[in-house]
Amino acid sequence: MVTPIPEPVLAFDLPDSVDTPTVIVDVNALDANIASMATRLQDRGVGLCPHTKTSKCIEVIARQVAAGVSGLTVATIGEGEVLADAGYTELFLAYPVWAGFEPRARRLRALHERADLCVGVESVESARALGAATAGSERALGVVIEIDSGMRRTGVEIAEVVTIAAACAAAGLDVRGAFTFGGHGYRDCDAPPGAADDEVRALTHSRDVLISAGFDVHVLSAGSSPTAVLSARPPVTDERPGTYVFQDRLQVGIGAAPIDSVAMVVLATVVASHRDGHFVLDAGSKSLSSDRAAWLDGYGHLPAYPEAVIRSLSEHHAVVWTTGPRPSVGERVAVVPNHACVVVNLVDELTVVSGGAVVDTWRVASRGRNS
Amino acid sequence: MVTPIPEPVLAFDLPDSVDTPTVIVDVNALDANIASMATRLQDRGVGLCPHTKTSKCIEVIARQVAAGVSGLTVATIGEGEVLADAGYTELFLAYPVWAGFEPRARRLRALHERADLCVGVESVESARALGAATAGSERALGVVIEIDSGMRRTGVEIAEVVTIAAACAAAGLDVRGAFTFGGHGYRDCDAPPGAADDEVRALTHSRDVLISAGFDVHVLSAGSSPTAVLSARPPVTDERPGTYVFQDRLQVGIGAAPIDSVAMVVLATVVASHRDGHFVLDAGSKSLSSDRAAWLDGYGHLPAYPEAVIRSLSEHHAVVWTTGPRPSVGERVAVVPNHACVVVNLVDELTVVSGGAVVDTWRVASRGRNS
Repeated sequence: MVTPIPEPVLAFDLPDSVDTPTVIVDVNALDANIASMATRLQDRGVGLCPHTKTSKCIEVIARQVAAGVSGLTVATIGEGEVLADAGYTELFLAYPVWAGFEPRARRLRALHERADLCVGVESVESARALGAATAGSERALGVVIEIDSGMRRTGVEIAEVVTIAAACAAAGLDVRGAFTFGGHGYRDCDAPPGAADDEVRALTHSRDVLISAGFDVHVLSAGSSPTAVLSARPPVTDERPGTYVFQDRLQVGIGAAPIDSVAMVVLATVVASHRDGHFVLDAGSKSLSSDRAAWLDGYGHLPAYPEAVIRSLSEHHAVVWTTGPRPSVGERVAVVPNHACVVVNLVDELTVVSGGAVVDTWRVASRGRNS
Repeated sequence: MVTPIPEPVLAFDLPDSVDTPTVIVDVNALDANIASMATRLQDRGVGLCPHTKTSKCIEVIARQVAAGVSGLTVATIGEGEVLADAGYTELFLAYPVWAGFEPRARRLRALHERADLCVGVESVESARALGAATAGSERALGVVIEIDSGMRRTGVEIAEVVTIAAACAAAGLDVRGAFTFGGHGYRDCDAPPGAADDEVRALTHSRDVLISAGFDVHVLSAGSSPTAVLSARPPVTDERPGTYVFQDRLQVGIGAAPIDSVAMVVLATVVASHRDGHFVLDAGSKSLSSDRAAWLDGYGHLPAYPEAVIRSLSEHHAVVWTTGPRPSVGERVAVVPNHACVVVNLVDELTVVSGGAVVDTWRVASRGRNS
């Protein structure tokens, strides 16, 4: 007798009291994810400076802080302003911010003056602009040099690290070390271990050349949710995973998360169901986003209809094809989105559930704060 | 001597006073697009019931109304509520709304009672739910049957039209006609004329079977921006284009709009520029969205660097590759987004320019109103 493999299912129940489409967060699954990452990095003696662009939500970030962090990562000055307003002042802006535009320079300086702000830099021009923006401040602005460890997005090669660091020092900035993002770990399902090794190698080399050039190195920061635990070893000082709080289809697909760790879904209603094998949900690209890794088939996973594929999205339609059972019009289904970070940025609030009941709504405080 | 073909460029100047990334709308290009579509449909004697999901913005919609409309189309009850609040009450909800969920049914009924609301329907279950939601109202809720003219999203086949219409009548609804969306016109660059013909054919057949079954037919509604003018012929009563107000890279690519009709861009700043031929903008998937038709290469068009291709997006990075000239760090560039409708839904306001100067900011009133 063959024991059937159980279908992977969501680890939490869904509320029947909210309209659709709605972004639902299960607080118990969320807390488990937050605790798990904090514990695994603490066990390895590496700091956790989580990227808060995933949740953009103070209630989620407060839970991460309570579980233990070495700082908080943001993508934009606006996200930093929201965190500073909430009393969080140990901030890493992991982005090569251009401070040569005067209104933005003023905001950067104001944030620097009320927080311990550290900013990414990867060009001489940017170093000069950051220096000019914060000239005359009581403290020098902290900077870390961004290194490309293989993604070929932002970040310099090892050969350029000292040039950039010297430009930072000449501009009056406080060079603290280096950071990298092994985002090439998302390129296929087997990529995370190699990308994690690349991160460690790039940061080790960066440390060596910076020390040789006379710089003190306090920060060697790596990270993405799939590589965070894999690259958490010396000399890395801290990791910046973001998506792990909610998990999503990309994290599950790449093996960084089991399906029962998913803490966020988009609840949708079936608005059409056709005999040819397709049905339509009221969650389209304005709810699920069109994000899709090249190796992922479709725009989300339906735990209740695991064979079904969301083949296309319109703004308010997800067109789902299946050769298996098909839901009826009016049925409510959960969708595990491909990419949690962009889904959260589409809504003003998260509906928080526990035991299938709504227990809170949390504001997406820095939704749309792209600058 | 060969005259070089002039590179297509934006028809308007960009402001140097706003931070990036920012969604910029040129009011003169906008007005020209609004006037052009209104005139072309008036010339053909077909009504214009523009889809307002593109702009979600009362200031844009007021300009469309001033140029002449037969009604306004919305995608959700929430968008309808915003329009009713602004005094617009001739509304077509072109979506097979599921009204079987009580809180949504109450909102639908309230909107019906303060507007001349007509709703799409494509299933017997949905007809019954709409009837139950509006039972006891002074007027019957208007409905039009959604027909599939080839897109295979929502909409029934001709053979089912009378069944659905009869279910609507039995549920106490006011059957007014049929509508279709020839969205298969977006499948490739040559598709719009065929899709427009499909729309006209499907609506003609729908009219015939409805009249044969004893229904009066007042509405035969077609439309998308690429097919709107092409299918504007009898028996079509009105068209529902949306994107034409702003135009975008998809409309230009499919031949529905010249590049100099583009009225909306995302203004971005170059934050990295590398010798290997790539540069990075501060507008990523949270600004441009990841929408991309299969036949479009990249995630937006840079008029100032027409050879450059946005090969990948992260949330706050557009990674652009070029073999031609490359901008410097700090340079500001315009990006014509692939799909205007989803870009607008990412921001709270539009920055309005004329002659390169900011003349207004308009609120995206129904941003995120997905239900």
